Amino acid sequence: MTPIVGVTTEVNINQDRLWESLMQLAQIGNYTDERTGLRGVNRLALTDADAAGRALVVKWLREAGLRVRIDEIGNVYGRREGRLTHLPPVLVGSHIDSVTTAGAFDGCLGVLGGLEMVRSMNEAGLVTDHPVEVAFFTEEEGVRFGTDMLGSAVAVGRIGLDDAYARTDINGVTVGSELERHGFRGKAPVRIQAPHAYVECHIEQGPVLSSTGRDLGVVTGIQAISWQELTLLGKAAHAGTTPMELRHDAGLATAMVTTKLHEMARSGGYGDLRVTIGRVDAYPNLINIVPARVICTVDLRNPSEAYMKDAETELRSYLEFVSAQTGVEITAKQTAKTPLVTFDGDVENLIAEKIDAVGLSHSRLLSGAGHDAGEMASICPTAMIFVPGEYDGISHNPREYSTPEACANGVQVLTDVVRTLSTDGKIKQ
Amino acid sequence: MTPIVGVTTEVNINQDRLWESLMQLAQIGNYTDERTGLRGVNRLALTDADAAGRALVVKWLREAGLRVRIDEIGNVYGRREGRLTHLPPVLVGSHIDSVTTAGAFDGCLGVLGGLEMVRSMNEAGLVTDHPVEVAFFTEEEGVRFGTDMLGSAVAVGRIGLDDAYARTDINGVTVGSELERHGFRGKAPVRIQAPHAYVECHIEQGPVLSSTGRDLGVVTGIQAISWQELTLLGKAAHAGTTPMELRHDAGLATAMVTTKLHEMARSGGYGDLRVTIGRVDAYPNLINIVPARVICTVDLRNPSEAYMKDAETELRSYLEFVSAQTGVEITAKQTAKTPLVTFDGDVENLIAEKIDAVGLSHSRLLSGAGHDAGEMASICPTAMIFVPGEYDGISHNPREYSTPEACANGVQVLTDVVRTLSTDGKIKQ
Repeated sequence: MTPIVGVTTEVNINQDRLWESLMQLAQIGNYTDERTGLRGVNRLALTDADAAGRALVVKWLREAGLRVRIDEIGNVYGRREGRLTHLPPVLVGSHIDSVTTAGAFDGCLGVLGGLEMVRSMNEAGLVTDHPVEVAFFTEEEGVRFGTDMLGSAVAVGRIGLDDAYARTDINGVTVGSELERHGFRGKAPVRIQAPHAYVECHIEQGPVLSSTGRDLGVVTGIQAISWQELTLLGKAAHAGTTPMELRHDAGLATAMVTTKLHEMARSGGYGDLRVTIGRVDAYPNLINIVPARVICTVDLRNPSEAYMKDAETELRSYLEFVSAQTGVEITAKQTAKTPLVTFDGDVENLIAEKIDAVGLSHSRLLSGAGHDAGEMASICPTAMIFVPGEYDGISHNPREYSTPEACANGVQVLTDVVRTLSTDGKIKQ
Repeated sequence: MTPIVGVTTEVNINQDRLWESLMQLAQIGNYTDERTGLRGVNRLALTDADAAGRALVVKWLREAGLRVRIDEIGNVYGRREGRLTHLPPVLVGSHIDSVTTAGAFDGCLGVLGGLEMVRSMNEAGLVTDHPVEVAFFTEEEGVRFGTDMLGSAVAVGRIGLDDAYARTDINGVTVGSELERHGFRGKAPVRIQAPHAYVECHIEQGPVLSSTGRDLGVVTGIQAISWQELTLLGKAAHAGTTPMELRHDAGLATAMVTTKLHEMARSGGYGDLRVTIGRVDAYPNLINIVPARVICTVDLRNPSEAYMKDAETELRSYLEFVSAQTGVEITAKQTAKTPLVTFDGDVENLIAEKIDAVGLSHSRLLSGAGHDAGEMASICPTAMIFVPGEYDGISHNPREYSTPEACANGVQVLTDVVRTLSTDGKIKQ
């Protein structure tokens, strides 16, 4: 059978319908930011809002004729059968959980883009060789339970199911109990058979595409990511009466680590290291008491594995130095670690080809953020399509915005790529 | 009339009764610390727990025969009439509000010590020349509404009543509305006439007395205190996709300020400067988002006004530097500022004399913490008695502990001092 390459007009996605789905899902968990008056989205994984979002998307998947299965970690797959049902599916997907201060796009674009692709395939009466599946994965953000890409990591076997169930949020609530509570602890086995290929459409969440004026991005991989949670145990003391030399100030220790990490990033000695100390919880957090305890997070990113390792080693050694200097006991827990991911060159080239075919421009770029695609890349040919965002690509923020046209561009290319991939014989496994 | 100086045995306070009162009041707002299992006290000013504590102490003051009046800021005075009712009262007092992680002593010792003094005077049938009053002042800690010594500062006229009413807690609740809610917005005029003298018994909250083995402290003044609240406005950004040079990280700016202040303290160039960054609230406080906003507090203490001024000037200039370096907008609000207070030499000497007379030892020392006595010193002869604490005098912590004997020593001396002060003609106004 001859692959149908380059035929991009046969399945035309519906821009308005895609936009409408994005806007409808964004109504769930929506809030108004106090300071800016902007409308944002808060659908932290496995909260009531996330469960409501999941219910809506499952309903839409079913209405589009997909057979929906839910696996043991709550990942949801909607299957469109192919002509050759024994072939592995072409999988597209992303996530619909969000950070607490999100916009309408992020992972939703990949999931609702997949839905729009299926709706359009149905309208066109397209029959594919391979089955096509649209998935959304549990707790991609990692903000609630501390580990990002949790659902897809369990699906590919990087993290164990029991380990994932046992993870807790800040109140000690477990992933397992929340899945039970919302009825999303499904029966389908969580470990998936290798798909034929995995393609994810996502907003860029950065300034590269908009600053270079390119319509879409072909993502070549994901930089290495290391997440640690530091617990700094000092000693409470009265701010007025305790001499400085008798203090064990957990806040000072945290500040030293923060400035050191930024110095490391600035130094250039660790490649293109990015550091973020995003969460800082001090206790007792009172004006006139020396901080007794701080829990903070360290997010390191690096396009080089070697530099990442150097940075982690230097951090470990600096924590010992700070501990010795301040008398603050410091423990570091690795909460997430994903190596540098290199995507599949064939899938990348196919994406680039499809972008050219519809007359759009593209850049190839490495993703700064982690994505479910990074997990899938360990079991099947994988790549991603990036859609540019306005305002320097700001995301995880109510200002996050991609135009209806940009979203439709990404989803049209996704559809065209999947159409080719699901035609038997195109991509070698 | 001949002053009755040195007669210390005529009014003997009851150690067990004093201890019983302290332990009973500590039952209100008590909690168990999760990590240590220790019992602590949380009676933040004008909360339900503080209101319950106030009600109990008011009941006790009345049962001791005192005429209770509540002023417009919720300060409570219990009056024991003197033989010469036209004379200004000898005032003793302190506060019963606490930080969120307190022990049983702190300000309670001064208030319940005053109560025990009155009970013992009653039993002895003592008639004083001057009236004697026992007071507790509103929001001494400053932890809830951001300004310490609030009640006593309004009483002496340093802070305006309307200004005080308008102060808000972290949820925007005002002092005025909380006073109303609890029925503690009294009718007595808040500005007081100058008392004959003010004496406050308080735990030391530091290691000096215990390390030198002295029984009690004669407090010669209070070091200068400066409280500021800093608001650092950066820009939220994705931890993975935003290049370091495009960030405006409010957390980094906070860390720079923190380490700088500690460097200043260590340098010796600002005298015996003490710095505490006790409260740090970051927003959105998520692992993978660059902190957009931090609100933190700066607590500076200094026994020298000149060095304090130098430190504040240097901090202001450094905030400008950090702002220029990081692109984070920083605003500083002075939430409290009390100058170096020097207590009254005559009252200090009288305290020392009474300590000697009961066969105890003492040190003279400057208080590192602020106290209501610091406010009273601006309108009348004032001094304080410090009672040593165990565990290096830790306070604002469930481990705070002074022995029953140490508490009784302080209150016996308080009683002896008041007895002499309330005898007409002893201290020149």
